[in-house]
Amino acid sequence: MKNPVALEKLVDRDKTHIWHPLTQHKTAHPPLGIVKAEGALVWDEEGKSYIDGIASWYTAMYGHCHPNIVEAMTRQMKNLDFVMFSGFTHAPAVELSEKLIEILPGNQVKIFFNDNGSTAIEAAIKMAIQYHHNKGEKRDTIIAFEDGFHGDTFGAMSASGISSYNGPFEDFLLKVIRIPVPTEENSTEVLELLDTILSENQCSAFVFEPLVQGAAGMKFHSAEGLSQMIGKCQKEGVLCIADEIMTGFGKTGKNFASENLTHAPDIICLSKALTAGMFPLSITSCTQAVFDAFLSDEVSKGFFHAHTYSAHPLGCAAALASIELLNSDEIMERRAYITLQHEQFVSKIKSHPSVKDARSMGVIFALDLAVETNRYGSLRDTLYQFFMDQGVNLRPLGNTIYTLPPYVIADEQLQRIYWAIEGVLEIV
Amino acid sequence: MKNPVALEKLVDRDKTHIWHPLTQHKTAHPPLGIVKAEGALVWDEEGKSYIDGIASWYTAMYGHCHPNIVEAMTRQMKNLDFVMFSGFTHAPAVELSEKLIEILPGNQVKIFFNDNGSTAIEAAIKMAIQYHHNKGEKRDTIIAFEDGFHGDTFGAMSASGISSYNGPFEDFLLKVIRIPVPTEENSTEVLELLDTILSENQCSAFVFEPLVQGAAGMKFHSAEGLSQMIGKCQKEGVLCIADEIMTGFGKTGKNFASENLTHAPDIICLSKALTAGMFPLSITSCTQAVFDAFLSDEVSKGFFHAHTYSAHPLGCAAALASIELLNSDEIMERRAYITLQHEQFVSKIKSHPSVKDARSMGVIFALDLAVETNRYGSLRDTLYQFFMDQGVNLRPLGNTIYTLPPYVIADEQLQRIYWAIEGVLEIV
Repeated sequence: MKNPVALEKLVDRDKTHIWHPLTQHKTAHPPLGIVKAEGALVWDEEGKSYIDGIASWYTAMYGHCHPNIVEAMTRQMKNLDFVMFSGFTHAPAVELSEKLIEILPGNQVKIFFNDNGSTAIEAAIKMAIQYHHNKGEKRDTIIAFEDGFHGDTFGAMSASGISSYNGPFEDFLLKVIRIPVPTEENSTEVLELLDTILSENQCSAFVFEPLVQGAAGMKFHSAEGLSQMIGKCQKEGVLCIADEIMTGFGKTGKNFASENLTHAPDIICLSKALTAGMFPLSITSCTQAVFDAFLSDEVSKGFFHAHTYSAHPLGCAAALASIELLNSDEIMERRAYITLQHEQFVSKIKSHPSVKDARSMGVIFALDLAVETNRYGSLRDTLYQFFMDQGVNLRPLGNTIYTLPPYVIADEQLQRIYWAIEGVLEIV
Repeated sequence: MKNPVALEKLVDRDKTHIWHPLTQHKTAHPPLGIVKAEGALVWDEEGKSYIDGIASWYTAMYGHCHPNIVEAMTRQMKNLDFVMFSGFTHAPAVELSEKLIEILPGNQVKIFFNDNGSTAIEAAIKMAIQYHHNKGEKRDTIIAFEDGFHGDTFGAMSASGISSYNGPFEDFLLKVIRIPVPTEENSTEVLELLDTILSENQCSAFVFEPLVQGAAGMKFHSAEGLSQMIGKCQKEGVLCIADEIMTGFGKTGKNFASENLTHAPDIICLSKALTAGMFPLSITSCTQAVFDAFLSDEVSKGFFHAHTYSAHPLGCAAALASIELLNSDEIMERRAYITLQHEQFVSKIKSHPSVKDARSMGVIFALDLAVETNRYGSLRDTLYQFFMDQGVNLRPLGNTIYTLPPYVIADEQLQRIYWAIEGVLEIV
C-alpha cells in the first residue's frame, strides 16, 4: 500500500524536513519539484519543462541522463561497486588517471582523488602547506584573487573572497592575502603588488580560477597577466593552484583554461563536468615535484588525507564515459557552434542601453545590466522568476545574467535563452 | 583496437599516475588491484578473494553490489540524474528526508545534505558558529574529545585530535579545546573539567563520536558520562554535534548510537552506510531550534553553504534502498547473530596472554594487543599482511585489531575472521 503522503505535491512535502543550500527559508520562494531530466531539459511536477541554461551548476554538459554514462555506471556497479582506495586500486581509477594525464597540461603527472570541488581545493591547499613543511619551511600565507570562489569548507572558504558566503566565519579562516585580477589596464600595478606580497610574507600557494571567475559573475581576466603572476610565484617556490572546477572540460573553448597560460600551474583542481554531474568526484592533479616532496622514509611525510569514497569506481566510470563524449566529433561540433552563437549574440546586444557589458568565452556568455543591485536582492529574484516563467533556468548573480548551456543544447533551445535575455533587457 | 597498456597489470599501471590517500608512497607495499566485489568479498586481479572485514571503511554493510541498491540507482539515473538543490527539489530527497526523520532521535527535524563525512562535519560546525552569530554572540571555541576523528578538511581536522593526520596543519586550525572521553573511572573529573572549559571560554559546539571512537582504534566510552556532558553543554547553549558517520545505521546495536543517550544531540552527522558505500552522500540533521535561528528577513542570516551535488538524486535513491535493507527481517537477524558471535569471541580470547583488552558493541569487535607499537609502524604492516595472506582484509590501527563486517557476512566467513585473529595472537 502506498504511503498517503505520496499523493501530496513535492513542493508541499519538501518544506517539512528539508533545509536547502543557499536559501533563506523565511523569504525564499518554495522550490520547484523536478521529476524528470533529459538532454538540456528538466520537467517539474506540473509537467512544465525548463531549459537547463547553466547545465545544473556547470555539470550536465552532455545532457541529462546520457545513455553512455548511465550504461557505464550500471555496468560498473554490478561488478565492482566500491572498495577502499588505501591499499587497493582498481581499473576505473587507473584508466581515469591515464586519460586525465593525457589531456591535462603536460607538467601534470599525479592524480589525487576527492569527492567535490571544495574538497579538491582543501587537498590542494594542504598539499601546498605540507610541501613546504616537508622541506622544513613554515609558509603560512595563501594568495588569492578578490572575489574568487573556491568552495564552502573552511580551507576553501579561506581562499574565497565573496563576503555573502563567508560573513559569519571571517575570524575562523586561514591567512589569505587578496589581490585584484589582472586586466589590460591594471597589469603593472597588480604585478607590483604581487612582488610586495611575496617579499613581505611567507607564501605557500597562489589559488585562482584561471581566466573566468564563476561565482563572482563570470568575470574574465587577462591570460597574459595571470601567466606573469604564476611566473613570479613559481620563482619564489609558491605553488600555483588552478581551480578549474567550473572552467574545466571545455567551457572556455580549450579543454582547460590553463592551456591559455604560458606558465602551467603546479596543481589543478577538477570536478563538476568531470562526471557530467552524475557522481560527486573531484581530482587534485600535480607535478612530479609536488609529489616527490612527500616521498620519504619517514611515514609522516606522506599525505595523510582521505575521504571514504576516494576514487569511487562509479565516479571514475562516469568520468571516463564523460571524457569520451567531451572530445567526440559531435560534442566538438556543438562546442564550436555555441561559441560562435554566443559571439554573435554579444555583438547584437552589447550596445543595448540596458547593457553595461556583454562578453563570451567558449560556451560561457555573460552580460552585466546597467543597474546596481545586490547579489541576493529583489531584482535578482524578479529576473530569476521572469526566466522561469519563460521556461528557462538561469541564475542571475546580482546584475549579471549568464548562461553556460549543456553542449547538447538544440539550436532552437539556445535561441530561446537569447530571446529570454533580450526580453529582460526590455523590463529592467 | 585495445590500448596495449590494458595488458599490463593494474598494480603496475597504478604507480605511474595515482597518488593514494593515507600512503607513504616511498615505503608502502604496492596496492592490490581489485576487479570484482560481491557480498562480503572482493577479488584481486590474480583471482584471489578477500573477506571485506571492515565493510570497506564501514560502508558496504548490506554486501557489495547489492541488487536492490543497483536497481534503485539505475532506475533513478535513467529518469532524473541530477538537478541543483537550490531552487529545486525532487522525490528522492523528499522521501529520504521523511525516512531519516522517522528513524533518527525524535528531536531531529531538518535535513541538510552534503557529500561525505568531512563536509557533514564542516556544515555542522558552520551551523553552530552561525547559530550563535545570528543571535548576536561570537563564540569562537569548539570542545572535542581527545583522539576524536572527524575528517580531513580544515574544519573537520580542527575537531580531530589524532596527530598523525594533523601534524603539518596544526597552526592552521580552529580553536578547539580537547577533553578526555568519560569512562566509569574518570567521569567526575571529566565533568569538572567540562565545567571549567564552559565557564572560561565562549564555546559554540561540542563535537563527539558517540560511544565509539572509530579511528582512535574502536575505543568505547560511557553513555551515561556522555549524556551528562551533553546536558551541561546544552544548559550553556552549546550545540552538541554527534558524529555518527561511522556508528550510524546499526553498527552499535541500535540504529544510531545516540539512542543510548538520555540527552539527544542538537545536530547529527551521517554518511558511510547511509548509501552502503555506493555513492558519496552525507547529511547533517538538526533540531527545529537550530533551523529557526537562520530564519530572518535578512537574507544573510540564511545558511549560505552548498556543494554542487547537494542531495544528489542517485545518492538519495541509494540511501532509500539501503535504509529499507537496514530494518529488513533478514538484516535484523544478521545484526543480532553477529552481535552474539562477537560477544562469544570476546569471552573466548579476552584472557589470552597476547590480549590487553577485548571488547564488542553491536557488530563492532576490537582487541588491543599487549604490545606497544606505532599507528603506522612495522608491526601494523606485518599484521595487515598476515591477514591478507589468509584472505581477510582488516586494517589494524597501532596495536588494535578490529572487525566491523558487513551484516551479510556468512557464518563461515565470520569464523574465518576470528581464526585469522587467533592466528595473529600466536605470532605477536
